[in-house]
Amino acid sequence: MDYYSRQINKLIEQLSGLPGIGRKSAQRLAFHILNMSVENVKELSSSILEAKENVRYCKKCFTLTDQEVCPICSNPKRDQKQIMVVENTRDLAAYEKTGKYEGVYHVLHGAISPMLGIGPNDIRLKELMQRLQDEIKEVIIATNSSLEGETTAMYISKLIKPTGVVVTRIASGVPVGGDLEYIDEVTLLRALEGRTAL
Amino acid sequence: MDYYSRQINKLIEQLSGLPGIGRKSAQRLAFHILNMSVENVKELSSSILEAKENVRYCKKCFTLTDQEVCPICSNPKRDQKQIMVVENTRDLAAYEKTGKYEGVYHVLHGAISPMLGIGPNDIRLKELMQRLQDEIKEVIIATNSSLEGETTAMYISKLIKPTGVVVTRIASGVPVGGDLEYIDEVTLLRALEGRTAL
Repeated sequence: MDYYSRQINKLIEQLSGLPGIGRKSAQRLAFHILNMSVENVKELSSSILEAKENVRYCKKCFTLTDQEVCPICSNPKRDQKQIMVVENTRDLAAYEKTGKYEGVYHVLHGAISPMLGIGPNDIRLKELMQRLQDEIKEVIIATNSSLEGETTAMYISKLIKPTGVVVTRIASGVPVGGDLEYIDEVTLLRALEGRTAL
Repeated sequence: MDYYSRQINKLIEQLSGLPGIGRKSAQRLAFHILNMSVENVKELSSSILEAKENVRYCKKCFTLTDQEVCPICSNPKRDQKQIMVVENTRDLAAYEKTGKYEGVYHVLHGAISPMLGIGPNDIRLKELMQRLQDEIKEVIIATNSSLEGETTAMYISKLIKPTGVVVTRIASGVPVGGDLEYIDEVTLLRALEGRTAL
């Protein structure tokens, strides 16, 4: 590997450590960066560092934000009594893009996974339970419909039910526009089980 | 987009400006970076800046390097009389990986493309012609077998032939392990034209 310079090698190595970026993509990215203007490279480099340095967890919902309380939690138009529980900030963003959800969120930062050794204490569950003391109307569990997401949903629902707060789960089923032919059996079965009257 | 913080948005924007990285991947990368340790983020950020700041063109072959003359050009074991012309440093690296080429390189940093308005003066051609004054034995043209690569190869060969230096072109044909069924007609035709006696 002495055909690249030490710095290029280091950059390629750093980039290929990122998720979804293999050796080839890392090389392509590195050379693209070397061809960018110095100002653009400085901006890229500093935005990486600044994001890391300034972003923290919202005190209420634990999403990633640059304020003490995130824009959603501090928005008086949002229903603070309805909490949607998601695994991470990206899932929150996915629901925000629908533009239709008017409640607030709780970001767990993970899901229970015995396989990976992630237990209930490793995600922001205690913090969710603390929020229930504020007369919450409904907790909507929107963890993924993976094994971990389902396990987490079951666990949370068992934990919350004794408190009397309504707990719901987002529907599983055939995605809109999905072709039945290409959908796995578990999803098809879920869609059947969850059928609604027309 | 007020569900992410300003810094996260800026980072996602910066990352999605990189080649092959769409909005979704940029999001995934951004959150991965936010979950990395501060030291690792600092290292990533600084390796981007350092690579850009310290890397320059080799004075002889114009590959990207951190020295005045790159390790290949300054290696006394390499045949300095045999020059392989490539479009960019990644192509050089591809040939270096074979471990079998013992000559040196010349990196054009591009290929002639009338479509993109890239002419012979926009690539390192003048510099290649200057190198021919050093009793060069052979120039191997290893530009890509794209339209631009072929145009560049033709142009260079016409330019060099009057000087008496031997000019060769790497072979086009069926890739090793390639299944004929999936190979385009132009390549198949090239393979036929370039057939060798067994």
